[in-house]
Amino acid sequence: MTRARIRDLGITIGHLPPGPYNAITDVPGVWVGHHTLIYDEPNVARTGVTVIIPREGAIWTDNVFAAFHSFNGNGEMTGSHSLSEFGFLAEPIAITNTHQVGIVRDALIAYMVENNLGGDWFLPTVAETYDGYLNDINAFHLDKTHVYQALEAATGGPVAEGNVGGGTGMICHQFKGGIGTASRLVDSESGRYTVGVLVQANYGTRPQLRVDGVPVGRELGDDHTPLPGKETRDGSIIVVIATDAPLIPIQCKRLAQRATVGLARVGGVGHNGSGDIFLAFATGNHLPPGATTLIELKMVPHHHLNPFFEGVAEAVEEAILNALTAAETMTGYEGRTVYALPLDDLQRVVAKYR
Amino acid sequence: MTRARIRDLGITIGHLPPGPYNAITDVPGVWVGHHTLIYDEPNVARTGVTVIIPREGAIWTDNVFAAFHSFNGNGEMTGSHSLSEFGFLAEPIAITNTHQVGIVRDALIAYMVENNLGGDWFLPTVAETYDGYLNDINAFHLDKTHVYQALEAATGGPVAEGNVGGGTGMICHQFKGGIGTASRLVDSESGRYTVGVLVQANYGTRPQLRVDGVPVGRELGDDHTPLPGKETRDGSIIVVIATDAPLIPIQCKRLAQRATVGLARVGGVGHNGSGDIFLAFATGNHLPPGATTLIELKMVPHHHLNPFFEGVAEAVEEAILNALTAAETMTGYEGRTVYALPLDDLQRVVAKYR
Amino acid sequence: MTRARIRDLGITIGHLPPGPYNAITDVPGVWVGHHTLIYDEPNVARTGVTVIIPREGAIWTDNVFAAFHSFNGNGEMTGSHSLSEFGFLAEPIAITNTHQVGIVRDALIAYMVENNLGGDWFLPTVAETYDGYLNDINAFHLDKTHVYQALEAATGGPVAEGNVGGGTGMICHQFKGGIGTASRLVDSESGRYTVGVLVQANYGTRPQLRVDGVPVGRELGDDHTPLPGKETRDGSIIVVIATDAPLIPIQCKRLAQRATVGLARVGGVGHNGSGDIFLAFATGNHLPPGATTLIELKMVPHHHLNPFFEGVAEAVEEAILNALTAAETMTGYEGRTVYALPLDDLQRVVAKYR
Amino acid sequence: MTRARIRDLGITIGHLPPGPYNAITDVPGVWVGHHTLIYDEPNVARTGVTVIIPREGAIWTDNVFAAFHSFNGNGEMTGSHSLSEFGFLAEPIAITNTHQVGIVRDALIAYMVENNLGGDWFLPTVAETYDGYLNDINAFHLDKTHVYQALEAATGGPVAEGNVGGGTGMICHQFKGGIGTASRLVDSESGRYTVGVLVQANYGTRPQLRVDGVPVGRELGDDHTPLPGKETRDGSIIVVIATDAPLIPIQCKRLAQRATVGLARVGGVGHNGSGDIFLAFATGNHLPPGATTLIELKMVPHHHLNPFFEGVAEAVEEAILNALTAAETMTGYEGRTVYALPLDDLQRVVAKYR
Repeated sequence: MTRARIRDLGITIGHLPPGPYNAITDVPGVWVGHHTLIYDEPNVARTGVTVIIPREGAIWTDNVFAAFHSFNGNGEMTGSHSLSEFGFLAEPIAITNTHQVGIVRDALIAYMVENNLGGDWFLPTVAETYDGYLNDINAFHLDKTHVYQALEAATGGPVAEGNVGGGTGMICHQFKGGIGTASRLVDSESGRYTVGVLVQANYGTRPQLRVDGVPVGRELGDDHTPLPGKETRDGSIIVVIATDAPLIPIQCKRLAQRATVGLARVGGVGHNGSGDIFLAFATGNHLPPGATTLIELKMVPHHHLNPFFEGVAEAVEEAILNALTAAETMTGYEGRTVYALPLDDLQRVVAKYR
Repeated sequence: MTRARIRDLGITIGHLPPGPYNAITDVPGVWVGHHTLIYDEPNVARTGVTVIIPREGAIWTDNVFAAFHSFNGNGEMTGSHSLSEFGFLAEPIAITNTHQVGIVRDALIAYMVENNLGGDWFLPTVAETYDGYLNDINAFHLDKTHVYQALEAATGGPVAEGNVGGGTGMICHQFKGGIGTASRLVDSESGRYTVGVLVQANYGTRPQLRVDGVPVGRELGDDHTPLPGKETRDGSIIVVIATDAPLIPIQCKRLAQRATVGLARVGGVGHNGSGDIFLAFATGNHLPPGATTLIELKMVPHHHLNPFFEGVAEAVEEAILNALTAAETMTGYEGRTVYALPLDDLQRVVAKYR
Repeated sequence: MTRARIRDLGITIGHLPPGPYNAITDVPGVWVGHHTLIYDEPNVARTGVTVIIPREGAIWTDNVFAAFHSFNGNGEMTGSHSLSEFGFLAEPIAITNTHQVGIVRDALIAYMVENNLGGDWFLPTVAETYDGYLNDINAFHLDKTHVYQALEAATGGPVAEGNVGGGTGMICHQFKGGIGTASRLVDSESGRYTVGVLVQANYGTRPQLRVDGVPVGRELGDDHTPLPGKETRDGSIIVVIATDAPLIPIQCKRLAQRATVGLARVGGVGHNGSGDIFLAFATGNHLPPGATTLIELKMVPHHHLNPFFEGVAEAVEEAILNALTAAETMTGYEGRTVYALPLDDLQRVVAKYR
Repeated sequence: MTRARIRDLGITIGHLPPGPYNAITDVPGVWVGHHTLIYDEPNVARTGVTVIIPREGAIWTDNVFAAFHSFNGNGEMTGSHSLSEFGFLAEPIAITNTHQVGIVRDALIAYMVENNLGGDWFLPTVAETYDGYLNDINAFHLDKTHVYQALEAATGGPVAEGNVGGGTGMICHQFKGGIGTASRLVDSESGRYTVGVLVQANYGTRPQLRVDGVPVGRELGDDHTPLPGKETRDGSIIVVIATDAPLIPIQCKRLAQRATVGLARVGGVGHNGSGDIFLAFATGNHLPPGATTLIELKMVPHHHLNPFFEGVAEAVEEAILNALTAAETMTGYEGRTVYALPLDDLQRVVAKYR
């Protein structure tokens, strides 16, 4: 599905080095799985589901600390009360469209029940953005087997970007959007760690798109590439942040809020119609669900966190751009077309400003 | 289903007068609908769904201000990000069990889509407590038609309590629990209003149960009425608060947090395993979803709110007790039995302390 | 200053055992110091300051995790942004009246600067309740030397209660209030710990006062003991909770919110005019301010916390009652008198209900 | 004090037009007053206080809705509990340095008491950033008369920027920082309103400084203009946002959070040592403190807020840049010098990227 990644176009975001895959999967043990539905009969599907497994094969018995920040809460991320109260994740995370959150949530539970994973009950975290411009959202395409397939497909290594999984029908800065990912290696006084990010990018107006500060959206005006309908100006972005550092929940929350910085750099302002909700988890501590004694933890001192904050900001910025450079032009529901960001023009405009 | 209401037993809670039904439906336009599933084949169902419609027939086009407070967030209430950001409800609220939140959420959306109610997308509020002691929760009994039936059944007037709707399989202070409701008439400097409450009560240990301050749970020890398994000590309570006063969202949040007072009076401490999440909405202002001009509002001055706070505390206290006095002994999943609070003994113990 | 403690009157609150002093100082290393100002010339002073030192002699170099919960935020607790962001305390806590928060805050800083304690800058936590009924609050009695004296006076062991320190001029349930303290020994699966509480109690109406569930306030009507002016119905309560358990910040927040339960049991509803703000800290972890490597922590598993929650609820309930039974009748500003809770009548009413 | 404003240098930020003064005072009735202390004997003062009066002459009797957002809470803004609970301001706001928050807070109270403004007690909002690099912060220079002078000096019209008031000793992106202001005219479906911003800018590293996306900080390396000590890399920014639109508190909070966008565009990432706390108030509704009946309000519909969000982002971005272009090179405590951003080089670099 992937056309290119922003870095392959000679455009480098920030100053920190990415990990080997420049993906959330650079955080050891983090797996990603997509299931994509694209068909035109009996109704138009341009949708799917993406799952992130915070700890491969073990999240159910070896929980990770986590927290969220809502920059603009016009969206859904289930499981948020539990995240606030306990500060950990005990299940995979999933991202899909607005009207499929329920089926995905219950499907995650059913999968865990059927596979005898975890305890007596579950409060999974499922987030969403709206794909109703390109997808017939009220056809409710997804069923639980699709979620199972995404779970079974989850793996480490390179992550498909663009028109895949939950990102299939998404639109970003009025170009075709979708899934993007990136990572940064972070050297702190506490040692070297990785910060990885995955976004489902579905927000923003064209004039506000910036690439490394360059006003690309303004330069690539409406004449250049046809704009989709103005209802596409609103939208949402879900950001999932992972790190292998031993953080505590209050620190995951700090990382989550830094996604705002990366988003703002690309041109996000948190429009009213946007559900901009950010989740961060840290695998460096191990939380056995049924611990019978004190749990031993480590914690990066707060004053070592600046490189993590910068890593999150850079990786979010790059992950959004990767969604844009990966996603291909798509025609969908009611014959609507959303065009991909033209890569040659992108390079031309950025070069002009350098 | 109802055996009795606490007030019928000669036990009066607090000093404020209840409304005509002593129910959340005393708030004009608030409707409640239950759908209850009780069967033993092909698997054991003791579950259901309860819907609260904040504004009869019009919530989709005439939104109400709302907010939530989480006393202990080990539970789910979807839609919370939107509640925090916008402070209003645009859809019915539903309460069910932990593993049916997803199907209920998507069913509410499907109902609104099919009936052409509301806008292009929905973020409904669905909350839950766990009924897996009496109900085969992993049989996932509920389907979307049950949710439709609850919506169609919704009406004003008296509200069935105890083993009905979402409360069917619930357990409270280790007696049979479920749905309870109560209301208070509130005389403030800003005029007379109604505060109504509905609870799905599924929390608490027996020794901590108090009725108007009397340690009923301690007096009615384990010998008296058999205790269910100790896994029933944890649990949850969902509280929905309604008022016809013109409050703004920040004030709905204040009311929501006062549910803690009523809960604490009955013996709740917010145990670790409990999802104690409280939602409050106020119908006194009218929010047209597509307003094209400034919206006119009224606001009860903050310093007039004390009677509302006391009304919420009293109504929550009484609604929980009504759940306990209404609910009947139930035998369910794996042959387990949870006994009803014995009414004669309750009266005897309270009398002894007076 | 102390007339009696509630337990000395034969009234036992809850089921958990108190520590040796039944005081916040039962948590090892927690010190309390009061400085009290009572004089009539040149203007009427009934005020003071109370300091709590979370870790004797070492809080500046060995920080403790902490968090707050606001049940009703009509009050001040400085330092709250830092508490939310970092989750720790690096300085003593102080409680005084509403109009002296600033001088106390800067005095704490000056003391730390002069004694070369801590770093380059400070964000201390100072809370307040209003004593303007008995104290000429706009005389701004306190100066920085009084804060120094409270710091120098801080010590472990028994804690003076009632009309002392920050609590000097306070009013609770329309009887004389002030400082109260209590503790509980908590047996959890993670081991035995202590939970200690100190309150500055200045809230509530007389009819709502309950002692172990008994409606003492209703029984001791206005005729019995003269009511102060009705402006005393509003007020505030500051609660400081300490434990030696190794909690993380998110867990301190959970403990802080449980103060609501103890407050509700005594008759608090969080009136509009009340600043009901609760702070909890945990000394079981050690946070060196300038750590150069990962910090090692321990954490009580969340599912071991129920005894802590119950301990907090009981200790808050008892600490408020201790404030009431300790405080003596006081005449102050403009010749106003606030009467102490009559101990013999208290015992009589409680006995009647048993 | 002012060298230039960014717009005078031919650099335009964003697309919305500024108000007549391009200052927070463009919001009708908003007044600003500074008091500046610069002297070398008996100790080095480079400090002061800035007050913002949300409603000239009437804030005490005609309160305004308000809310805050903490992007990184390593700082102080008193009054935040009350802001969260009530959502309004009843007093002027003040900004000063970290160790003078207390004296300023109590001085505001004393001023209101002496002038018989407002009620029986006050919970003022005082925020801070740290000026200890250029100012002998532990000399505690400010006394209450300085606060009174700032209040008396408050007025509408042009606002002094740079090294004035609370901003006197501040440092921003390792150039001399301080006070900056800007405004935007906002055309929404609900009509035309003004958004005004005032910042006390004291954060950031030089390499991260961007001006309208151009990496000015990277281009103007360390060789060019000497860097101050590396302890200046951390810092803080206080943002005060005003609008004359009739917003409710939940909407003020939404505006407050948008300050993050403007800050991120200039190069802020919310470093660990930063207290980045944002306050927004809206004068379009009128809240009489002692209202005896329902209060009439108006509310901009949420879906009309996008222009406000963009206005806040742009005005914050420009206000920070105005602080930088206004502030002059300063030598202070221990002979340290912090250099002003060189304006000609700024223009040169920006031109190069266009």
